[in-house]
Amino acid sequence: MGEKTRGRLLIIGGAEDKTGPCLILRFFIELAGGDKAVVALITTATESPRQVAGEYRELFLQLGAAEVIHLDVSDRVAARSLRLTDRLTDVTGIFLTGGDQLRLTSILGGTSVSKWLHAAVRRGAVLAGTSAGAAAMTHIMIVSGREESAPKRSSVRLAPGLGFLEEVVVDQHFAERGRIGRLLAVVAQNPHILGLGLDEDTAVKCDPTGFFTVIGSGACTVVDGLTIGHSNVSDSGVGEPLALTQVTVHVLPAGYSFNLDGRKPGLADSTMD
Amino acid sequence: MGEKTRGRLLIIGGAEDKTGPCLILRFFIELAGGDKAVVALITTATESPRQVAGEYRELFLQLGAAEVIHLDVSDRVAARSLRLTDRLTDVTGIFLTGGDQLRLTSILGGTSVSKWLHAAVRRGAVLAGTSAGAAAMTHIMIVSGREESAPKRSSVRLAPGLGFLEEVVVDQHFAERGRIGRLLAVVAQNPHILGLGLDEDTAVKCDPTGFFTVIGSGACTVVDGLTIGHSNVSDSGVGEPLALTQVTVHVLPAGYSFNLDGRKPGLADSTMD
Repeated sequence: MGEKTRGRLLIIGGAEDKTGPCLILRFFIELAGGDKAVVALITTATESPRQVAGEYRELFLQLGAAEVIHLDVSDRVAARSLRLTDRLTDVTGIFLTGGDQLRLTSILGGTSVSKWLHAAVRRGAVLAGTSAGAAAMTHIMIVSGREESAPKRSSVRLAPGLGFLEEVVVDQHFAERGRIGRLLAVVAQNPHILGLGLDEDTAVKCDPTGFFTVIGSGACTVVDGLTIGHSNVSDSGVGEPLALTQVTVHVLPAGYSFNLDGRKPGLADSTMD
Repeated sequence: MGEKTRGRLLIIGGAEDKTGPCLILRFFIELAGGDKAVVALITTATESPRQVAGEYRELFLQLGAAEVIHLDVSDRVAARSLRLTDRLTDVTGIFLTGGDQLRLTSILGGTSVSKWLHAAVRRGAVLAGTSAGAAAMTHIMIVSGREESAPKRSSVRLAPGLGFLEEVVVDQHFAERGRIGRLLAVVAQNPHILGLGLDEDTAVKCDPTGFFTVIGSGACTVVDGLTIGHSNVSDSGVGEPLALTQVTVHVLPAGYSFNLDGRKPGLADSTMD
């Protein structure tokens, strides 16, 4: 961690379609070069790496990728001792699976895998992550937080993420798990941080300038705390309900876009007035 | 329905504390006159009127009310033929229990019970409602809507309510049932309507000028669509995800207030800049 890189990102809210049109995964393969795509699969977040890798490998090959390499890194020893072969230099797309984001970052952080990851993205590889993989892509990430409750000061824990997007925190399975409370708690504590809540089977493609577009069947809920008028976060006790006024919220389904620079929502193809 | 009255209201988000300090119910009895309170209990929303009435009667008497009258109105025949006795003229507080809001309004609407209710509130009686009872108090109310999902055009149904608060829609069990999606859907369709989402064991006391204060252990989430920049509600198909930009959200726990006139959040005792 500590390293920051701007590149092409595909941030996925979990449970992306794997049996129907597979829009999001198809788009990932396209971004990674279509029939020339060389995909590296990082299963570090999950405790079932072989099963998860098998499933994604089959899908990516079906969707036309040239090659799928499973980086089976399950602990820090493996992360430190990964041999960075020529094959890995050819990687055009990296996919971070779901599981536990703290597991992912605590294993990869500061290791050669992490260095390789940053170098690959700087070189132009697209980095995708789903569920915990998505949450971990940013500079600061959500570790845990109470769902389906009024936001409280203690309702959310943050930790360093992998460093690919600054000033943004990503939450996933968003509508399905009633997570707006914890995103509100994040922006209350850190109003300069933009909250992005991704529903299942929904993704944002983010380019290096910070412009992103939404794809998939749900929505990306943007929680912007820069407009906050008042919050009690500095005086409420742990467990006390948070008060927040004037938070700005955007609900953006497929076809919509958002510019992190200026924090402006828009249509995918043009700006909105 | 059709009749509109401005009076003192206590709008409760459901599952109010009945075994501990009973803050909200205690406050209701206080508003209704304390040891002079004559409470009318309307159980029309529930299919278990006797059980529910028994529970509330005991509580209200324990909390010091002088008298509790159970208006056991379970169908329109009873609603039309209710004898409006002198006892009912003395009522200082009315309590609408939980259950089904459409059942409540479809039974009471346009009957002598409804007329009596409006007259009592105009006379100064405080009207309280919890859960479905809270939802039904407004001029327009939420009937149903999909929970825990990205808001869609079809995700919420509205119907006429009892008419005690205009330009406001109330949802309850708010954080607990992940209901922000359906409140966003309401304001998307009707940006002039203010959405109030009440958590469990949380209430807003609303006075006739439209100033309300929050009490209880959760929060009142205010969803203000007047600031909406763009919505796709007129062009999205039924079932398509809604797009909304620039919605203003306030999260107000106990100690905070909101002025419907001007739509300004504040502290309970003073205005906030």
